[in-house]
Amino acid sequence: MTFGFKDKKPSRRQFLSGAAAVGAGAVAAGAARAAGPDPLITEVQDWASITGEGVDATPYGLPIKYEADVVRRNVPWLTADPISSINFTPIHALDGTITPQGCAFERHHSGAIEMRKRDYRLMINGLVDTPLVFTYEDLERFPRENHVYFCECAANTGMEWAGAQLNGAQFTHGMIHNMEYSGVTLRTLLEEAGLDAAGDLKDKWVYVEGADASSNGRSIPMEKALDDCLVAFKANGEALRKEHGYPVRLCVPGWEGNMWVKWLRRIEVTDQAVQSREETSKYTDTLADGTSRKWTWAMDAKSIVTSPSPQSPIKHGHGPLVITGLAWSGRGAIKRVDVSRDGGKTWETARLAAPGEKMALTRFYLDTEWNGEEMLLQSRAMDETGYVQPTKTQLREVRGENSIYHNNCIQTWWVQPNGEAENVEVS
Amino acid sequence: MTFGFKDKKPSRRQFLSGAAAVGAGAVAAGAARAAGPDPLITEVQDWASITGEGVDATPYGLPIKYEADVVRRNVPWLTADPISSINFTPIHALDGTITPQGCAFERHHSGAIEMRKRDYRLMINGLVDTPLVFTYEDLERFPRENHVYFCECAANTGMEWAGAQLNGAQFTHGMIHNMEYSGVTLRTLLEEAGLDAAGDLKDKWVYVEGADASSNGRSIPMEKALDDCLVAFKANGEALRKEHGYPVRLCVPGWEGNMWVKWLRRIEVTDQAVQSREETSKYTDTLADGTSRKWTWAMDAKSIVTSPSPQSPIKHGHGPLVITGLAWSGRGAIKRVDVSRDGGKTWETARLAAPGEKMALTRFYLDTEWNGEEMLLQSRAMDETGYVQPTKTQLREVRGENSIYHNNCIQTWWVQPNGEAENVEVS
Repeated sequence: MTFGFKDKKPSRRQFLSGAAAVGAGAVAAGAARAAGPDPLITEVQDWASITGEGVDATPYGLPIKYEADVVRRNVPWLTADPISSINFTPIHALDGTITPQGCAFERHHSGAIEMRKRDYRLMINGLVDTPLVFTYEDLERFPRENHVYFCECAANTGMEWAGAQLNGAQFTHGMIHNMEYSGVTLRTLLEEAGLDAAGDLKDKWVYVEGADASSNGRSIPMEKALDDCLVAFKANGEALRKEHGYPVRLCVPGWEGNMWVKWLRRIEVTDQAVQSREETSKYTDTLADGTSRKWTWAMDAKSIVTSPSPQSPIKHGHGPLVITGLAWSGRGAIKRVDVSRDGGKTWETARLAAPGEKMALTRFYLDTEWNGEEMLLQSRAMDETGYVQPTKTQLREVRGENSIYHNNCIQTWWVQPNGEAENVEVS
Repeated sequence: MTFGFKDKKPSRRQFLSGAAAVGAGAVAAGAARAAGPDPLITEVQDWASITGEGVDATPYGLPIKYEADVVRRNVPWLTADPISSINFTPIHALDGTITPQGCAFERHHSGAIEMRKRDYRLMINGLVDTPLVFTYEDLERFPRENHVYFCECAANTGMEWAGAQLNGAQFTHGMIHNMEYSGVTLRTLLEEAGLDAAGDLKDKWVYVEGADASSNGRSIPMEKALDDCLVAFKANGEALRKEHGYPVRLCVPGWEGNMWVKWLRRIEVTDQAVQSREETSKYTDTLADGTSRKWTWAMDAKSIVTSPSPQSPIKHGHGPLVITGLAWSGRGAIKRVDVSRDGGKTWETARLAAPGEKMALTRFYLDTEWNGEEMLLQSRAMDETGYVQPTKTQLREVRGENSIYHNNCIQTWWVQPNGEAENVEVS
């Protein structure tokens, strides 16, 4: 290991000098510390001398008050008003891969509606043998599956097209979450209605829409609908949050979040794409020549260093530093993540906390040393297809700067000698 | 598939008759339904005609009000007062494998204390080369790992020794949760302090204690301490809840929850077990002859049907039924789960939602048919060691009825023709 904890590098001693001094003091009959008295040593601290609060009063446990800053945030100027807004995941403050529902990003086009399960209906119509309407209870009677999938808004990182903008991973990359979904496959429900009436399935589509005022209708190729789409009613074990589509949403693994229709109301089997507002005037990619590219559904391989980052500066001294972040691909599993500290000139391969899983977030770590030198911190993801996450320059060469969606460029944080970080652009 | 959704069994028609009628009505110009008007068909429902609420007001998203019954609960007569109490996970209402922190069981012996990260210290002393005290910030500088582990209280299901008691999976089996933990291995910290001073490690122990008034000290064999114990500061991506030991707790994978010391304050390397209150007068197993068995750390293979169950009765009609539950083993991965509907006379092998993972919950499903017949519903887990979950009778033959802890017997739910279920005993 070269993390500086077990070998004898000076940096290790330097790191330990602080801790060890405290330790020595602690063990040697509580001698006072240069850094002032340590409550653990000079006295019995309050929490060890009195009993804490009973927690029966909080049947649903909430985060401790000291974590009040680990919350979703929006960017006021980004959306017209709260009825059509986005709340970003505080990825700079999280670790692991699972996103708690309470922190999980959500985008809504006409507010978050409150629907009771008893009022819920899901219609399947169009080119099916038997049009059906399911109640919530009906859905619970079909065979269920559980899968951890990421859901990323197509607009995630969209503000970066024109250059470094928002100062924080939560704002540049926080339109994403990763949860364990439980539900019924869309294939199961389509086969229940019967697809013989649809004839040859290879050129067919399903049009999915939600029960909210926006309806947010999207067309999905039948091949994808029958492959891995999930009609989900639980996330991380419990019911969906209102803002995530309670009681039922669609999961379209690896594809842009706008297709993950919330408050899923209707599934129509069609012989062509509907060309709805959400797939023509929105969620298409405007190219340099002004033309728009549509049907860019999959979220390409992407990664971000979550710490250190502008909202998570280095506050400790020199020596051991853990650089960590997230990587994902809508086309399969992440195979490798590299980290650069010099703006992409040289790269080190990071450690994946676990082998990459298809269409799910992968946590990476680079256990290293930092002694106050400036860093231009970047991460670069590679997925099982061999695709390598591109630079901003490479993306612009193909797409220009007029796009909003599908910006999966390599992000750069400028880490300064004082440990603070800024969103910057390197050419 | 034999789940009755795709083939032509009468039960399928029966099941579909309800849904299809609605579907037919829906598709045929909104004809009125026998069951009364369907808001989706006879009118534009409110939530599609007006915008929902903006959610910027809830930066930390809470469960929708309609799920207010999916919360932790305690059993008032079980513990003296809220200062030393237990809150049970509502496993009857959850799906998948991840337990949300807000719903995750917790046991506290002297209340849940509130400690700031800046006040946190972790001391390593005893037979180490360099006694150390770490701050929270220090811990964040060591290499991290992420693992999904279950944490089960040794007393889970303890009330069942004397016979069927509490009526609900939440109360009989809810002293368990399953979360993705992020932290530093205990091995890393012990090696940082240096273990040369401990000499031969095979007969050494670590004594771990918490910062709360109970201190809850426990002795752990060095072999386990160096194997897979984790000093964790995140669960499901975010900081631990106060009641789960914020800011730092110990994870002892597969072993009884009492050893998962919360508010972890001190780790002492010793040449013998401390024989603390929590491992002598408590957390030992009283046998039939009155003697007590100690050092029963591992939680043996166990399973429970979470639905249908007393708190999750069958409310729908006859036909397709999903029987689901959880299985786990403190000795490795779950390999197979069988379900019986006749009190253990005959068994069917359930479908595992995913291959079992070591020391983590496994979700199982039996997709079947129910036509109102009484069921004596049981589940039986098998782990990778070949161990098979025992019956209550088999356990009592070995242990008598005086024990409190480590009851991993097969549980029975009596499902009645009306779909309601009761906790019963079968001989």
